[in-house]
This record gives sequence, structure tokens and C-alpha cells, in this order.
Amino acid sequence: MAISFASDNWAGAHPAIAEALVHHAAGSAPAYGTSELDRKVEKRFSEIFEREVAVFFVATGTAANALSMTLLSRPGGVAFCHREAHLLEDECGATEYLAGGTRVRGVAGALGRMDPQELDRTIRLHPAEFVQAGQPAAVSVTQATEIGTVYDPSEIDAIAEVCRAHGLPLHMDGARFANALVALGATPAEASWKRGVDVMSFGATKNGCWCAEAIVVMDPTKARDLPFFRKRAAHLISKSRFVAAQFEAYFRDGLWLENARHANAMAAKLAGLFAASKAVRLAWEPQVNEVFAIMEKTTAKALNEKGVFFHPWQVPGDAGFALAPGEGLFRFVTSYATTAEELDALGKMLE
Amino acid sequence: MAISFASDNWAGAHPAIAEALVHHAAGSAPAYGTSELDRKVEKRFSEIFEREVAVFFVATGTAANALSMTLLSRPGGVAFCHREAHLLEDECGATEYLAGGTRVRGVAGALGRMDPQELDRTIRLHPAEFVQAGQPAAVSVTQATEIGTVYDPSEIDAIAEVCRAHGLPLHMDGARFANALVALGATPAEASWKRGVDVMSFGATKNGCWCAEAIVVMDPTKARDLPFFRKRAAHLISKSRFVAAQFEAYFRDGLWLENARHANAMAAKLAGLFAASKAVRLAWEPQVNEVFAIMEKTTAKALNEKGVFFHPWQVPGDAGFALAPGEGLFRFVTSYATTAEELDALGKMLE
Amino acid sequence: MAISFASDNWAGAHPAIAEALVHHAAGSAPAYGTSELDRKVEKRFSEIFEREVAVFFVATGTAANALSMTLLSRPGGVAFCHREAHLLEDECGATEYLAGGTRVRGVAGALGRMDPQELDRTIRLHPAEFVQAGQPAAVSVTQATEIGTVYDPSEIDAIAEVCRAHGLPLHMDGARFANALVALGATPAEASWKRGVDVMSFGATKNGCWCAEAIVVMDPTKARDLPFFRKRAAHLISKSRFVAAQFEAYFRDGLWLENARHANAMAAKLAGLFAASKAVRLAWEPQVNEVFAIMEKTTAKALNEKGVFFHPWQVPGDAGFALAPGEGLFRFVTSYATTAEELDALGKMLE
Amino acid sequence: MAISFASDNWAGAHPAIAEALVHHAAGSAPAYGTSELDRKVEKRFSEIFEREVAVFFVATGTAANALSMTLLSRPGGVAFCHREAHLLEDECGATEYLAGGTRVRGVAGALGRMDPQELDRTIRLHPAEFVQAGQPAAVSVTQATEIGTVYDPSEIDAIAEVCRAHGLPLHMDGARFANALVALGATPAEASWKRGVDVMSFGATKNGCWCAEAIVVMDPTKARDLPFFRKRAAHLISKSRFVAAQFEAYFRDGLWLENARHANAMAAKLAGLFAASKAVRLAWEPQVNEVFAIMEKTTAKALNEKGVFFHPWQVPGDAGFALAPGEGLFRFVTSYATTAEELDALGKMLE
Repeated sequence: MAISFASDNWAGAHPAIAEALVHHAAGSAPAYGTSELDRKVEKRFSEIFEREVAVFFVATGTAANALSMTLLSRPGGVAFCHREAHLLEDECGATEYLAGGTRVRGVAGALGRMDPQELDRTIRLHPAEFVQAGQPAAVSVTQATEIGTVYDPSEIDAIAEVCRAHGLPLHMDGARFANALVALGATPAEASWKRGVDVMSFGATKNGCWCAEAIVVMDPTKARDLPFFRKRAAHLISKSRFVAAQFEAYFRDGLWLENARHANAMAAKLAGLFAASKAVRLAWEPQVNEVFAIMEKTTAKALNEKGVFFHPWQVPGDAGFALAPGEGLFRFVTSYATTAEELDALGKMLE
Repeated sequence: MAISFASDNWAGAHPAIAEALVHHAAGSAPAYGTSELDRKVEKRFSEIFEREVAVFFVATGTAANALSMTLLSRPGGVAFCHREAHLLEDECGATEYLAGGTRVRGVAGALGRMDPQELDRTIRLHPAEFVQAGQPAAVSVTQATEIGTVYDPSEIDAIAEVCRAHGLPLHMDGARFANALVALGATPAEASWKRGVDVMSFGATKNGCWCAEAIVVMDPTKARDLPFFRKRAAHLISKSRFVAAQFEAYFRDGLWLENARHANAMAAKLAGLFAASKAVRLAWEPQVNEVFAIMEKTTAKALNEKGVFFHPWQVPGDAGFALAPGEGLFRFVTSYATTAEELDALGKMLE
Repeated sequence: MAISFASDNWAGAHPAIAEALVHHAAGSAPAYGTSELDRKVEKRFSEIFEREVAVFFVATGTAANALSMTLLSRPGGVAFCHREAHLLEDECGATEYLAGGTRVRGVAGALGRMDPQELDRTIRLHPAEFVQAGQPAAVSVTQATEIGTVYDPSEIDAIAEVCRAHGLPLHMDGARFANALVALGATPAEASWKRGVDVMSFGATKNGCWCAEAIVVMDPTKARDLPFFRKRAAHLISKSRFVAAQFEAYFRDGLWLENARHANAMAAKLAGLFAASKAVRLAWEPQVNEVFAIMEKTTAKALNEKGVFFHPWQVPGDAGFALAPGEGLFRFVTSYATTAEELDALGKMLE
Repeated sequence: MAISFASDNWAGAHPAIAEALVHHAAGSAPAYGTSELDRKVEKRFSEIFEREVAVFFVATGTAANALSMTLLSRPGGVAFCHREAHLLEDECGATEYLAGGTRVRGVAGALGRMDPQELDRTIRLHPAEFVQAGQPAAVSVTQATEIGTVYDPSEIDAIAEVCRAHGLPLHMDGARFANALVALGATPAEASWKRGVDVMSFGATKNGCWCAEAIVVMDPTKARDLPFFRKRAAHLISKSRFVAAQFEAYFRDGLWLENARHANAMAAKLAGLFAASKAVRLAWEPQVNEVFAIMEKTTAKALNEKGVFFHPWQVPGDAGFALAPGEGLFRFVTSYATTAEELDALGKMLE
């Protein structure tokens, strides 16, 4: 039996999401984001965020990030994010490329969270009008972070304060936003624009959709050029209503939060297994659906051979621990589809 | 009752395509195009093209075109296509943008088909080593064309001959490739690489999928950089296997050709209705699933008011006819979902 | 003896310009455009244009054009210029490349001058909010034109009126602006912002400088991002004061207009020689320093062999004449350095 | 009396360079880099490098760097250089912009020199075929470094060895190449291609020219696309022969090395003054024409008020020292034009 903790994007599509496509498959409707269903789902976003927002569907989370930064950037622009952020390390330079050469500069911070003072210090390396250094353009935070932690509201507040001091917009990469909301017990509004977030990448693919990502612009008057940014990057999906259909099902009856709650709970249980095991120890406490564990590489290999999939991981720069010889750091990701049975099976392997 | 001839991308998803998603929804599989299903469908493409090809799924037809041109382009490059091609007129400059400033230059030709002599003459405006003019980089043909005609094999041969004479690769925009195959009675191989096509945009969305587009590179050794071109443009879909799933169903039991055959037949019938009508006349004979008709704008408006949707169209530069005052040119597109009943209903309105 | 009519950029540097470098060679001064001399020359531009303008030196006329368009462009932008404009045909796609994929669309018009009605018709192919077509961004006129003619003020007014109607800024490529001013008897202000020009490429290299080009922004408040556009394109020259030094000498005692007046007069005399010759005929009347002549290719070759340099030229699309077999169209360019003796010598060859 | 140590690009033009322009000012010659003088100077570069090289003049050092990287880059490419390199910190993202989104990644190393092991470790973060991380494309070293030190030959060898192991080309930013040659006692060949350098930015502006920068490609067969890269970036100077004229004078009778030798000697003398002063201490030993000194900010201000210009500087990450409260780090740059009298005057101020 194979058990995958490789990534939440190895999971499939939640049955309710899959059925949504079948439900809407027939009939004819305007293309390119102009159907009634598109409009309806856009309104749903506004309800969820408790304000009128502008919503733009795109094909991938990388597109959501890179086009958000394209919207926010400036010529010779420098964007700031955590030095291990997906936007910087895992998107093949999409922001640099799509946003016209925007430089993405990493900022240090423990446990995947950008340190506000480091952010301030780094921005100051780019004084206004000093063309050589380029001009600061935007800041991006990832919520939940790349390594399974979350910023608490006061931490986002501190970053937003630095943004305001420098006149910079704040972007949030919400590839795992639902997981963060559940962990924080916060509403979407509380976790985003009430904290100072101007634009966010709203991901649903990792949480049970099969291809549903959106850019949410909190102030629609600032989204004027985004339709052109999206189209010229070839991200205006013709039968856009089928992305809308996924979001419709995703939001219905709180499915999205339910999926995230399940994934987080499975991660907590997994962390408990590791804490109880002699062979494995937790690298740090997980807050959402990613668990990082330290074990002998031979142990990891033995698990792999028993059909358990997970990825090795770079030790973060600010981890505050070192690996012993022979040890490795490994990432385990749970999802809406992870089952208690899978955890039980793993638990037995760890005994 | 609404009857839509607005576009084949107003249609939904064919039931077999929609079911394919449900069928593959469960389980876990590697992401980013590395699953078994991705591999299986890639092999299916090779069977269909009767040679080993490299296949890259992307989210939109515009992405397929623009990333194909990115692969084929050169610095200061100039690409050539028909002056009314989708790539030039309908993609918001995606090729210019994604392919690093590549200039797209229109070439004249009657009925949507690029004239080989005009192509040759236009390429010669860019002599090798004359940096001011930029360097010729690639040629793109659209099969079927934007206006419902097809190139016959000898016409593609003539264009490929011009390409060879100038050392240029040939791209085919196959957004409606299946419709062209059915019209020509040709195999995919006969209609593409046997005619000199190096790279093609293989579209399935307009023909019953909901989001399935691919770049097909006939010589896989020339695709080396395409994974990076795709990823940096944010078109590597994480749960890629669900694009693969659509193609699996699309190719099964010839569904793709059946859908196209139906759409073409509906178009032929529609053309017959127009030919028999006093109120409408055919602008030119349709060969695939697009029918262009000339009628009084008041007639068109009356049809619209009865729930029949279709778009007005620019008279092509080489049309060889002029509109009378009050007349307009209109495009009617059929699809896999167009029904005989819809045509009957339209026929009655035209009586 | 070699006599060159190949181009005004084959000429050298006027003695006064060359001496200006020697004059300013010693001493130390702030770099990157911040020296007193830079400031002084910027003020001189404002005097010459009779309003406060913002001035940005760049290395080439192509840079002035492409960075002007970068300033004026929009995402998915389409720029419009005459279909034979330098910006479109002779700059290796610099605008497409530097302005982030901006598409440059040619507009027809007789004798190198864009037709206002054609301009209006072409802009209308890109309706606002129709993302597929891209959004109109800017219009560029070339004064004097590529083929030795000038727009008279009412013609620029008509183009500016079209710009206003569509909310588009107007750029002027003034690579030969001095020649146009002399031909028109107009002041810089009358020939530019009083006609509706927002930004211009102000060329001096062809008229006696050796490397002096500037972007002039008529409303300095709109130039906010241009320092960053210029620097990221690597066009902020470190010892910028030596460009300023050329302009200082160029403007002193009306040298620039004197040089242009001489070049135009030489062209008029050359046109007279052609008109009087049996072997050559004028293609159209020159208004500035470019003369286009039709002759047998064998005649041209004989002149070349006698040391007279000039370039063959494409017959413009709207020329209104056709060449006889064996004939060619040829361009002769005069400059500040062309001498009466050279014309006399050519005159004897033509007898 | 003002004494400027602000930068070597605050200096003017050496008299021999200035005279070269006057010498070549008259006459007519082919434009765009095709004159006899261009060719002659290109050959001179080949003599100087003891191999046939391809040479491309550009307007700025930033252009030389960014277009070199454009030539060497790959899609989704990542370039590596010292984390305080000019290419990364002082060029407004020109490489990111001109090289199509190429990401520039900083590598640590003491005293401005990239550490080969750190380089290797950083490159390994981008495994081949892992598209998320982008693909390694090129490495750039700066010789002399940004902070007045030089790599000795074995240090370049070690970096070149890392490049070879990863199949990456090596670029050298030689904005102060002459200063490095003099410090090393090495020939251009020994300091470049014999060490594994593939492409270099060859700067002359800081060393007595007023605008003379070149890209030197050691293997001309690899420069095929560079003319197009240069032209589309608007860096093909029309009266290119006047850049050639500067280089001709620069190389004549060893002027370039003489200028550099003088600047270096003045820096050594300046360092001696600082070492002998109680108010100032050397931050590290200068090897070329940049001296970094630590002093009270009040002392610096007092010097400024006496007319001595120099810039404050960020303490490098690997400096190995910390500033006391009230202290600052300052950069003093000498040039061909720095005089012994200026140093004497400064010496008296420091007593």
C-alpha cells in the first residue's frame, strides 16, 4: 500500500469538486470569464472577504503570485519576501520574468516568517531616487508559510507597518490560505485586508480542487490593468466557468474550511506519531498541514521502500539546529484526502 | 430558447470528458506532469502522430502559441503569420511579451491562408545580418484558419518550402486541428510533420474538453528548454494529470474526430440554410465549423432578439467583396454540442 | 575622391562639437547626470522649448524611441506609427523588447506621413476592454519623416486630434528634428507641444554631434519612472556631462539650426541636379536632407564605382509610382558636412 | 579647493582620449560599427588578448554586464556573482530585465571575492531538470572587485573549476580591469581566458575615456546572436567609430596601463596617509584604486566641508569587523587624474 505525504498537490480532486464539473458540463455560456457563473462566484468572493474585491482566475499558483507582483511592481522594481518563499525559490523566476525583470530579494526570519526588522533594513538598501539600487516595489508574505507555520495577526501587522512606512503594497501568497485560516481561527477578512494585505494569491488546488487559483485584489480600482496582464501572459482561460464551478463547490457549505481542518488535524496527528517515535523527531511544531521531521536517512529509505512517499528538505537558514551525520530533514504533507488509516499504518511502521 | 453560435468555446465539456475527471479524481499521483497518466497520454500523442513527439500541456491556446514561438524565436526575432491570425490579432501581444519582444508580422493571403509568395517577399525584408530589421525567426500557419477554411496539403507544402529556403521553423496553430483533419481526410502525421510542421499548438478545448491544450514538438531533441519556458511563464499545472485525463478521454474511440465531424457537419447544414435563405448569403464556403454570413444588420439584430447568439466580424482584407450599406458580416460557430434541433429552429426563423 | 550620401550618421563630428569635449575634459564632476553642466543643459532645453521640460540623455536614437514608448506604453499595449517608420522597421524590435512586448502597428499614409483617418481606423481595431486585441497605448510620428518629407503643422494637429479622441499620448521621433524646424520655419515649441506632442526623441547625432540623443518629456510630472526605465536599460551614461557638453555646443549660437539649414540646402541643390539630369529623376520633392532618386541600376553602379556612396531603398507602399525594369530607387542623404564641391563633382558625373 | 575621491567616473577624459575625437572628427565613414577604424580597433583587442576575440562596443558598463549575461543566460536562468557585486546591487536590475528575467543570486565571500565553495553550494541549489528552481546559467566575477581588492590567479582558477564542473560559462566584469592587471602584473590573456573567462565586460570609461565600454567574447563563434542582443537593447551606437577612436588612443603606447598604474599608486599613497593618521584607519588593504577607511562620521563631515568628496559605504557582510558607535565606513577612489598635490592637501587635513 502506497501512502503519500509527498505534497498536497499529489492529491486528487475532492468528490464535490469533481461533481461540480459534471454538473455544469452541459449548456452554452460566454467564454473568457464573462459567464453568469463567473460573476456569481466573483460575488461569492466578495461575500467571503466582506468587501467588494476584484477576482481573477489563473491556471497556477505561480501565475497568481507572478501576476500579482506584475500588478504591484514598478520599473527597476525590487520585491521582498522571505528568503525561502515559494515565490523566490520555487517558481523558476516567474516573477522576474513576467514582471519585467523585477528583482526578488530574500529577507531572513525564523521558521519561515519574515522578520519585520530585517525587512525594514533590506528595503532601506534601496533608497528612493537612487536608481542604481532599483526601487522598492512590493512585499510578499506567505500564509501559511512554506514550512508549515503561520504568521499570527500581530506579525502580519508588523510587516504591514513596515510596508506603510515605505509606501509599499503588501501581497499575500495564500496557496494554503484555508489551512492558515483554520489554524488561526480567523475570517478571510481578518487574515487579509484587515491586516493590510492589498492583493492575494488565493489557492484552492492544494486543498481539493484540481485547477483553481485566483488573484484577489482588495481594492478593485487598483486592478485596472490586471485583465491585460493576465491575457498577455496567456492565463485567461477560455472556458473559465469551469474554474468558477470548482470555486462554487469549494465554498459551498464550508467545504474549503472543512478540507483544511481535516488536513491540519491529520498533520497534528502525524506530529504526535513522530513525537512518540524513537526513530523520528519533530523539527518544529506544525501549525498547518506540513510536518517536518528529522530522522536517519536509512530510516527514511526504509519507509520509502514500504511505500511511504515524502520529500527531503533543505534545513532552513534560521532553523537553529543542525543535523547529525547520517540524519536528514524530511517534509510530510497531509491533505483533505489523508486518512486516519494511513496514519495508523505509518504509526505501525514507526514502532 | 437560446441558440449559441457565438464560439466553440462557449460550449461546455463533452460528457465523456467530464466523466474522465470523476474517474481519476481519487488517489494520489506525482504532480507537475510526472504521473503515470501524464506519461501514458504523452505516449498516446506519439502513437497518434506516428512518431515520438514531446508533449507539453498548458492552460490556454494562447499559451501554446506564445510558448511555441518562444521556443522557436531568436533575439530581435520576427515571426510571420497570416495578417488576421489569432496569434497576431487576438492574443493581446502574448507572443511579443512572452517571447522577449519577438515581433509578429502579418502576411497577406486570401481566405485566411497565407500566400507563399507574399511570405517569401516579407521574409526578404529581413536579410540575415542586417540587425536593424531584426532576424527572421519562425513562421506560423493556422489549420483550420481563423475564418473556417483549411489549407490543403499542397498549400502547406508551399509554405514549408519557403521556410526551408530561409532556414525557418514552421509552427502550426491547431486550435481547431481536429476539424481540419476531418475536413481534409488526413491523418495527424499527414497534416503536420509530413508537411514540414516542426511544432504545433494542439487544441482540444474548443472541441469538447474544458481545459486541454498542448504544445507538440515533433523532434523531441529540440524541446530541451521548453520545460523552463513553460514553468517561468507559470503554465506548469500542478495537478497536470487532470489535463492528461481529458486528453485520454478525448482520444479514446476517436471521440475527438467524432466531435469535429459533428461540428463540421452542423456547419455544412447551417451553410445550406443560409444558401437557401433570401435574407442571408454565405460570405464564402465553410470547410470546417465556422460559417460566415452576410445579412442586413437589422436581420442580425432580429435573430439576436430571438435568442440566437453570434458575433459580427471584420471583413478580411482579401475578401474580394464589399458590404452594401446596412449589411454586416457575421460569424457562426458550431461545436460538438450543436444540435440538429437548433439548426431547424434557426431555419424556421430564416424562412 | 569618395563622396558619401550614404547617411547623415556617416558624417563625423562638427568641429565645435569636437572641441566641446576637449574644453570640458579636465576636472571632476558628479556622474550619472547630476553635474552642473547636465543641469545647465537641461535648462537650455527648457528655454528652447519655452516651457519646463524633463530631459534624459541616452546613447542612441533607438533608445530614445524605445524608452519613450516604454514610458507611454501599457500592458498588452499597442503603439501606432507610420508603417515605414524607423521605430517599426529599423530598430530590431527595440520597442517591442524594451517596452515589455508592446506591439507596434503600422499605419498607412502617403509620402511617409501617417494618414489621420487610417490612424483612427487602426486604433478602433483595439476597443477598450477587449483584452484579446490589446489596448491602444501611444502614437508616434516622425518629424522629419523617414523619406525626407515633413508633416506641416495642420497634419500634426489632425493626428493629435485622433490621439485626444482616443486618450492616447503622442510621441515624436525627432531624429532629424532640426532639419524639420528649418524646413517649416517653426520654433521647437510650435513644432512639438503646441501641436500636442507629449514626449519626443530629440536627435543631434545625425546633425553634427557624435553621440547626443535625448528624450524630452513635455510635462515633467509624467516622467517619474523614466530614470528607472533608462537605468535598467543600461542607458544612464556615467560621464553624462560629455553628452551635455555636446548639446551645449550644439545649441550655442544656433549651430544646430545652421547645420540643418546647410544640410537641407545641399539636398535642395542635389534635387536640382537630379531634376536637370537625363539619367536620374526625383522620386518626390525633398523637404529636408534626404533626396530620393530613380535611376537605372547600371547608372547607380557606375556612380558607386566613381566613389559616390548611397543606398538603394524600398519603394514605399503608397509611392504612387512603379519602377521600370532595370530601375531602382535610391536614397541620398546630405549633412552639415556635405560641401558644394561634392555636389559639383556629382553634377559633372551626371552630365 | 575641491578634491574628489567620489568615484573614478567623476574624472573627465584624459587629454589623449579627448584629442582622439578631434583627430577623427572630420570625414565620412560607415556607421554602426562597420568603419575601418572599428575594424582596426577590434584587431587591436585581439592582439591585446593574444587570440582572436569578438568585440562589441556599448554605451555603459551596465550594458556590457547585462548583455554579456543575456548572451550567456538560459530560460529560467540563474546567474551567480558575489553578493555585493555591481551587477547585482548597482545596476537597477538591468540583467534581470535585459536577460529576460534571469535571476541573479548573490554568493558570499570575504573582501569582495566570491568563495568557490559557497559558489558550488549555491549552484547545487539548482539541480538540472528541476524546473522549479530554475537552471544555472552563468557565473560572474568582478576583477578588480567592488571594494578595491583583486582575485589572484589561483582564486579565479578555483572559480573556473566550479564553473567547469557545472558546465557553466564564466563572465568577468572588468570595469576596472586595467587596475587589476597592473596590480597583478599579469597580461590580459593571463588574467582572462587563460583563467577560464569566456566573456568579459571591458571597461575604459573609469580609466580615462569618456564613454568606452566593450563586451569581449573570447570565442567569436559563440557571439553569433550578440549583434541582435545589442541592437534590440538600443546599444548599437551609430557613429561607433568615435568609441573606437577612444580605444585606439587608450591602447596606444600603453596609456591604459599607465593610467591604471597611476591611479593605483595614488591609492597606495592615500592608504599610507590613512595608516599614518590617528583620525582614520584602513578598513582593509587596497590593491587597486579604491581605499576604504573607517573614521568618525564627524571627521568625515569635516573633510566634506573642506571640499573633500567621498561616499559612505555599507560594511560588507563578511568584513570581519564592526563599526564603533559614531563611526562610518567610507570609500575613496583615485583615478588617472588624481594628483600628488591633492593627496598632500588631504594629508595636511588629516594631521
